[in-house]
Amino acid sequence: MDYQRIFTQAIDRLHAEGRYRVFIDILRDKGSFPNAHCFAGHNGPKPITVWCSNDYLSMGQHPDVIGAMEQALHEVGAGSGGTRNIGGNTHYHVELEAELADLHGKEGALLFTSGYVSNEATLATIARILPGCIIFSDELNHASMIAGIRHSGCEKQIFRHNDVAHLEELLAAADPAAPKLIAFESVYSMDADIAPIAEFCDLADKYNAITYLDEVHAVGMYGARGGGISEREGLAHRLTIIEGTLGKAFGVMGGYVAADKVIIDVIRSYAPGFIFTTSLAPVLVAGALASVRHLKASSVEREGQQASAAKLKAMFAEAGLPVMPSTTHIVPLMVGDPVKAKRVSDILLAEYGVYVQPINFPTVPRGTERLRFTPGPTHSEEMMRELTAALVEIWSRMEIQLAA
Amino acid sequence: MDYQRIFTQAIDRLHAEGRYRVFIDILRDKGSFPNAHCFAGHNGPKPITVWCSNDYLSMGQHPDVIGAMEQALHEVGAGSGGTRNIGGNTHYHVELEAELADLHGKEGALLFTSGYVSNEATLATIARILPGCIIFSDELNHASMIAGIRHSGCEKQIFRHNDVAHLEELLAAADPAAPKLIAFESVYSMDADIAPIAEFCDLADKYNAITYLDEVHAVGMYGARGGGISEREGLAHRLTIIEGTLGKAFGVMGGYVAADKVIIDVIRSYAPGFIFTTSLAPVLVAGALASVRHLKASSVEREGQQASAAKLKAMFAEAGLPVMPSTTHIVPLMVGDPVKAKRVSDILLAEYGVYVQPINFPTVPRGTERLRFTPGPTHSEEMMRELTAALVEIWSRMEIQLAA
Repeated sequence: MDYQRIFTQAIDRLHAEGRYRVFIDILRDKGSFPNAHCFAGHNGPKPITVWCSNDYLSMGQHPDVIGAMEQALHEVGAGSGGTRNIGGNTHYHVELEAELADLHGKEGALLFTSGYVSNEATLATIARILPGCIIFSDELNHASMIAGIRHSGCEKQIFRHNDVAHLEELLAAADPAAPKLIAFESVYSMDADIAPIAEFCDLADKYNAITYLDEVHAVGMYGARGGGISEREGLAHRLTIIEGTLGKAFGVMGGYVAADKVIIDVIRSYAPGFIFTTSLAPVLVAGALASVRHLKASSVEREGQQASAAKLKAMFAEAGLPVMPSTTHIVPLMVGDPVKAKRVSDILLAEYGVYVQPINFPTVPRGTERLRFTPGPTHSEEMMRELTAALVEIWSRMEIQLAA
Repeated sequence: MDYQRIFTQAIDRLHAEGRYRVFIDILRDKGSFPNAHCFAGHNGPKPITVWCSNDYLSMGQHPDVIGAMEQALHEVGAGSGGTRNIGGNTHYHVELEAELADLHGKEGALLFTSGYVSNEATLATIARILPGCIIFSDELNHASMIAGIRHSGCEKQIFRHNDVAHLEELLAAADPAAPKLIAFESVYSMDADIAPIAEFCDLADKYNAITYLDEVHAVGMYGARGGGISEREGLAHRLTIIEGTLGKAFGVMGGYVAADKVIIDVIRSYAPGFIFTTSLAPVLVAGALASVRHLKASSVEREGQQASAAKLKAMFAEAGLPVMPSTTHIVPLMVGDPVKAKRVSDILLAEYGVYVQPINFPTVPRGTERLRFTPGPTHSEEMMRELTAALVEIWSRMEIQLAA
């Protein structure tokens, strides 16, 4: 058994497929985001503009967030020092869970170290508690949901992306007595579309299923208080479990679920990924608390972000760039080839100081490789013009197909 | 299907077994740890002494760590804004990985959002890459390793805790051509004993297996530079993968593995739990970097902690309390009953202002419920005397069995 050879072959496969990932080494400039510096491959740090951050509203730079984190740092220190059960349950955690429960109109909420862990741990645990549970999962669900579903050990049925008729077909064919869970996202980050939440809830009622909605790309971003698409459409009360993140629009780090008290208690008590891990550092929880509270009261960041996204989509379309249809804040540009997608990204960084990561398999299906832009309220119109011109030049240079 | 009833029954089972967990709501006082405040069940915050933190060396309060975090907060902001591949790879991450690789004498290291995730993601990924791999796992391995092993889908063989002869028996009986991975911990946190690392490495050589060592309760704590038991015993070079945490002795949050470059590259490229999650917040990485660097150069915290642990063990033994045998920095006191363990803990908190969490199933096997004390360099001799007296009083009041 030649271990080295097998590991080397695994890496060689990635190179051969053009999807070996190189991490771009950056530091953001607080106060002037999307400006940042890039380290690798240059003589000293080089200034860049970041176009692919999930800190959609620049809340990671907000004075309220920074101030709250600094205060926590000085009052209680760095880490929590333990799991939630053993020494790591701080008053910040208790307060943030109450704030998040309120955000989604639920009885309770539970914090996790990441959105990935919240999806994995919750789906695996809730479904395992229900004997014979069948999970109905959208085909484009995030890797963390897929992991949770697999780890639940339950039967899984995959429905076509956002397809109400197909979901109903599967529900109708299933054993009426079996517990059923419908798992889906509100905003699909890579395709920039939105699920038919009301119709899925109708089906849940009709077939006595519970629902699990991932709102990680929507919390803070949609709804009058940032409660996500489910708030915007007045549907939060119809969903059994709403999952969100503190690491994207809220600008910090961590994940959570909100639901009925008893469901929160079950996850809290049975999920290994929640129980056996050091709790979120108080400094992060304090920052997230400030961010959630700010975005409950302020809509100016959300409006600025939507305006930026609309402007960039319009510019791309006008320039004939193959911008994918998007009803959300995300602006994906189709390339359709992993090597070309990486090459465009490399040229943008090296020649234009523009940082946007190529999105390749397994994040998106093969043949649909793309660039994914996330304009925020602090991306200026001039930055957008420069970006569009750069893309048009590269598209022409590389002879990539323009929009039909 | 009555979902509410099933969820309620799951919670009722915990109450019936006396292992329903109540999280104690605390805030630590930076600069005067182990002093803290407790919120729940009192009129206003009440001062307490924390005896169950995994911030073993109080590095979560260290001025270098706090200073580095404050600087990062002001230079780059709160969260990283993305996955390591998409916008979330900061220069802090690159620097800390180099520092951790050096700490363990390995070519590379990789950061994760937690120690739990590092174990789960690495074990699941590495074993899955090796066709037909058999994993040999110590029976007391942590829940996160068990999760990773299960998610790898590989054949698992469990050997008796720290039992070299039993491990060899299983290795000898296995297909000589199959890839083999031996997974174990150095310091077992709940039993306070240490694995025979050299003997396990000998077996790995003899049977051509790779090794995976979890050092989460040892990094920062043992070895001249805090490289763990494997450093103290000069064995780091013999281990294939060393896993550690930034959330215990280093006082912050996050996990990592250190190994050969190609292995790090495989995990980085194939592990969903690494790829699809927002990277550690720069503020945490900056704090951990300062902590790791400090503990590489300074042994005073390690020595103070070992002295405190030795003192407390001696006091408990002299008082006739059933302190479990411990060759490490952890001081477990056997109770043997979940309800009694919780009751002792409740009395300590309510009447003595002492916070130590009862350790019940599933963290330890049923019938071995215990209290687990983690004295640190800042626990004074007077605090220890008060604690010992309180325990003797409660032991007598509750008629729990003393040491034989």
